[in-house]
Amino acid sequence: MASAETVAALVEAGGAHVPRLMARVEGRLAELAASHGAVLAEHAGATIAAGGKRLRPLLVLLAAGPEPSDEAGVVRAAVAVELIHSATLVHDDVLDGAALRRGRPTVVAAAGRALATATGDLLFSRAFAELARGARPEPIRALSDASSALAEGELMQRSDAWEIAVSRQRYLARCDLKTARLFEAACRLGALEGFGFPDELGLFGRRIGLAFQLLDDVLDVSGPAERTGKHRGTDLLDGTVTLPLILARERDDRLAGLDLRAVTTAETAAAVCDAIAATGVLEVVRAEALEMVGEAKAELPDVPDAQRAALELVADGVVDRYA
Amino acid sequence: MASAETVAALVEAGGAHVPRLMARVEGRLAELAASHGAVLAEHAGATIAAGGKRLRPLLVLLAAGPEPSDEAGVVRAAVAVELIHSATLVHDDVLDGAALRRGRPTVVAAAGRALATATGDLLFSRAFAELARGARPEPIRALSDASSALAEGELMQRSDAWEIAVSRQRYLARCDLKTARLFEAACRLGALEGFGFPDELGLFGRRIGLAFQLLDDVLDVSGPAERTGKHRGTDLLDGTVTLPLILARERDDRLAGLDLRAVTTAETAAAVCDAIAATGVLEVVRAEALEMVGEAKAELPDVPDAQRAALELVADGVVDRYA
Repeated sequence: MASAETVAALVEAGGAHVPRLMARVEGRLAELAASHGAVLAEHAGATIAAGGKRLRPLLVLLAAGPEPSDEAGVVRAAVAVELIHSATLVHDDVLDGAALRRGRPTVVAAAGRALATATGDLLFSRAFAELARGARPEPIRALSDASSALAEGELMQRSDAWEIAVSRQRYLARCDLKTARLFEAACRLGALEGFGFPDELGLFGRRIGLAFQLLDDVLDVSGPAERTGKHRGTDLLDGTVTLPLILARERDDRLAGLDLRAVTTAETAAAVCDAIAATGVLEVVRAEALEMVGEAKAELPDVPDAQRAALELVADGVVDRYA
Repeated sequence: MASAETVAALVEAGGAHVPRLMARVEGRLAELAASHGAVLAEHAGATIAAGGKRLRPLLVLLAAGPEPSDEAGVVRAAVAVELIHSATLVHDDVLDGAALRRGRPTVVAAAGRALATATGDLLFSRAFAELARGARPEPIRALSDASSALAEGELMQRSDAWEIAVSRQRYLARCDLKTARLFEAACRLGALEGFGFPDELGLFGRRIGLAFQLLDDVLDVSGPAERTGKHRGTDLLDGTVTLPLILARERDDRLAGLDLRAVTTAETAAAVCDAIAATGVLEVVRAEALEMVGEAKAELPDVPDAQRAALELVADGVVDRYA
C-alpha cells in the first residue's frame, strides 16, 4: 500500500479543503465507532480507529474536487466507503484466522469469530445507513454494486483456492471484483457529490485499483516483511494464485508442476517466492501496473487543473509503493 | 414459526393482488440467485430457494395495502427484506456451525465458513442494491437501520452468552434488535410504498416481531422436535438465555444456580427444559406474547378494512404457532 506519509502528502496536495474534509471524515468515523455500545466501541472502534491510510476516502474527496456544493454529502460518501472497506477487512480476518492487522490484534483474534462476523455485518449496515442520510439513490446504487462485487470476488477467490491453473483472465476478473470496484465506487461517489464525470472518474478509480492489487500481489512475493508488515508468500499459504505465479509457471517447469497444498510453512513459501522472482516476472507485473496507472492518468476527464494534479498524485502514490 | 400452510392461507386472504405480487417476489429472488455465477447460484441460491415461509415479504405486501401505486417498489422492498433475512441466517449458521436449515444442508456445512461468510455478505449487498433501484432514500434508511439492529442484536447475544443472570430488560432489548426491528422495517417499507402510516404500521410490525421471538423461545423449551425441526434446548446449548429461563430462575432454586457451561448434551438440555416447563413459566411467556399481539391489532391505524383484516390475520398467524 502507499505509505502513510505518501497519503498525508496527498491530503496536503489536494488543496486546503482536503485536510479539512478528511478531519470531518475521521470525526464521523470516531463518532460511529463510539455510538453502538461497548462491544462495537471496543472491536469495530479499534478497527476503524487503527486507521490505515484512508486511501479510499481520499479518492472520494479528490474526485469531488474543490468546493463541492454539498460537503456533508462528500463526507458521508467518504465515511461509507471506508466503512465497507473496514467491514471487508474484519470478515477477511475471520476467514484467514488472522492474528494481526495494521499491527494490532484483529477483531477475530481479540473476540472470536462470532463477534467479528457480527461486527463486520454492523459496519456494512452502517455504511448504507450513512449514505441513506442523503437524499439520492445513485450513491447507494454505486456502493451496493461495489460491495456486491467485493463479496463476489471473495467467493471467487475461495472457490479458486488451491487451483494452480487459474487463468490470467480469471485472476484479473477477481482483482477487479475484490479491489478495483471499490476504488471505482469511491471516485464515482465523489464525482456524484462534486463536479460530475462519475463514469470517467469511476474508470480512473477502477484502473488504479487494479494496479494497486497487482502491485500488492508483487509485494507479497518480493517482500521484505518489514515493508509489507507480513511475511512473504501469505497468498501461497492461503492457496491464492496471483499473477506473478501465473506468469512464472510459463517460465519455470518446477513452478508449473507446483502442488500448492504442499506449501505449508513460511520457509517453503519463501523458497517459492524466490523461484517466482528468479523468473523475472515481478518486473513484468510491475510494468503492467504502471501502464494501467498511465492510462488512468491519460484518460482523466476535463476536471479543473488543481483536481487533475491531485488525482495524478494519487495515481503515482499507488506506484510509489515501490519507491 | 407460523406454519407454511398458515402463511399460504394468509397470502390468499390478503386479496387477489397478494398472491400475484408474491409470485413476482419469488421470481425476482430466483433471478437474483441465478445471476451471480455458479458459486452464488449454488449456495445463496439454495438458501433463497429453500424458501421458508416468506413471512417478512408478506408483511411488506400487506402493509402496502391493495393496489399500491408503485407495485415494482413494493416487490423490491419485499425482496430486499427477505435478502437481509437470508443473509442473517447464513451468517448465524456460520457462527453456530449449524448443519441443517429448513431441512437442507446449510451453506457453511456444504461449502465451509469462508464461502458462507462471503455468501452472506453478498446477500446483504444485494438487498441494498435492490432498494437502490428505486428513487427514494427512506426505504434504504429503514432497511439499513434494521440491518444495523440485527447485527447489534447478534453482538449483544454473543456478548451475553453463558451469562445466566441476563435481565428481562436486556433480553427484551436483544429480541427487539434481533427480530422485531426487521419486522418493523418490513411493515414500514410496505407502508412507504403503499397507503402510508409508516410509523404506525412499523410499530405493528415491531410488536408482532417481538411476540414472534418470545414464542420462538418458548418453542425451544417446549418442543417437540418434530414441530420445530430442531432439538429442544438448542438455545441452552448455545449459551443463550431466554425469557422462560429468566422467569423460571425466580421460581426454582436449582435453575437459579444453574451453570450453563455444564449443559453440553442434548439429554442435559432436555432435562433443563423439563425443569423450566415445570415452573409454569411457558404459559406466562405465551400470555405476554398474546398480549403484545393484541396491542398490535388494537392500535392498527385507519387502513382500509380488507387490509386491516389481512394484517390481523398475520398477527394471529404468529400466535397460531401454538395451535
